[in-house]
Amino acid sequence: MSAAPDMLFRIAALNAEYAAAIDDDRLEDWPAFFLDTCIYKITSADNLRERNEAGIVYADSRAMLADRVLALRRANIYERQMYRHIVGTPRLTGAQAPGITAETPFLVVRTMRDGRIDLFAAGRYRDRLHDDAGTLRFRERVVICDSSHFDTLVAIPL
Amino acid sequence: MSAAPDMLFRIAALNAEYAAAIDDDRLEDWPAFFLDTCIYKITSADNLRERNEAGIVYADSRAMLADRVLALRRANIYERQMYRHIVGTPRLTGAQAPGITAETPFLVVRTMRDGRIDLFAAGRYRDRLHDDAGTLRFRERVVICDSSHFDTLVAIPL
Amino acid sequence: MSAAPDMLFRIAALNAEYAAAIDDDRLEDWPAFFLDTCIYKITSADNLRERNEAGIVYADSRAMLADRVLALRRANIYERQMYRHIVGTPRLTGAQAPGITAETPFLVVRTMRDGRIDLFAAGRYRDRLHDDAGTLRFRERVVICDSSHFDTLVAIPL
Repeated sequence: MSAAPDMLFRIAALNAEYAAAIDDDRLEDWPAFFLDTCIYKITSADNLRERNEAGIVYADSRAMLADRVLALRRANIYERQMYRHIVGTPRLTGAQAPGITAETPFLVVRTMRDGRIDLFAAGRYRDRLHDDAGTLRFRERVVICDSSHFDTLVAIPL
Repeated sequence: MSAAPDMLFRIAALNAEYAAAIDDDRLEDWPAFFLDTCIYKITSADNLRERNEAGIVYADSRAMLADRVLALRRANIYERQMYRHIVGTPRLTGAQAPGITAETPFLVVRTMRDGRIDLFAAGRYRDRLHDDAGTLRFRERVVICDSSHFDTLVAIPL
Repeated sequence: MSAAPDMLFRIAALNAEYAAAIDDDRLEDWPAFFLDTCIYKITSADNLRERNEAGIVYADSRAMLADRVLALRRANIYERQMYRHIVGTPRLTGAQAPGITAETPFLVVRTMRDGRIDLFAAGRYRDRLHDDAGTLRFRERVVICDSSHFDTLVAIPL
């Protein structure tokens, strides 16, 4: 457990940078948080419980994530909302898989142009991380939403 | 103040494990975060201000907490909601009591089966902790809700 | 990067103390988080984008912050709401300015007397900090709200 505090700290810092890239609308920076070959998936707790592997969003390479950003840029030209991730303290879940594994709760609130603020998404990240010569990257990030009704969740990366 | 960062870090990690046990519906793991003889209380800021000691929930042993989990399991068989704790950075409030004392803000959001997400509870934890040979446990956890209308708050541990 | 974890930790602890002073209604303690000569500003992401320097709240000294607290005490005599800040992990944004610079996401929820809880504000802090012989203080705190409709945001410090 001696290395754990440092690793938890690094994961918290990574999550902070990740969330800021999305919330500051620097989506083009987002794919670089992942390895070239990676898994990024948005799913729900229900899907996971029922071993339903059909995530609402699925990508298995950094290139696919970059494509996704391009598609979002083309689609979201008018209505401008603000998103704000609030990310909790990570937990090392280790041991059951090779590498570094962690789970972290998150909340995303959305502010509309008219000033309304709503709860956009809540859930947890289930991550497998790779320490690339001092830089942590996601080998796999599964975004497990508490809600199964995420028709609009495709709007931004979570 | 040299030991403070490490202790704050350990309390943050404890809070993360505590919240995950509840939010992952591993309620049976929840009593183990407390000492055998302990205080667990849910109250409100108003109650506290008026020195009204009648908390909405009160337990003074780990056995009582285990009983509470059993009761919750019997009661909550159908409707399934998801809860998500977002726990802030702890503050050491020290000195005024023997042992380790801390306060930590929290927020709990609830996701309904139909996808609605609402703010379930907000408040702060007021804790007295015991370092049991390297494992931190709660000697006392007082959950001070910002709201005094917590009729439904008895649904889950906070 | 060797000093970064310690500094991030100290900023997180500072933010926790800052938020607790406001949420515990110890507003008189709030000005002491700033240097005598300082900037405190509440603005919006839109204002910032349009280089509109008119913040909704602006103060350039600790004395002005103390005046503001006095004014709030005079104004807010009846209706009593509870505010709860949930502050995320800070990011060191360094290098572009002298001193220590950081950005940190935040969320404030408000609990009304009747028990309703709503999202009051979301955004990020953009800070310049000064290490005053071991005590961190704000040389500048810009509160960048995600919403531009903050007519009521003047109610409390953010």
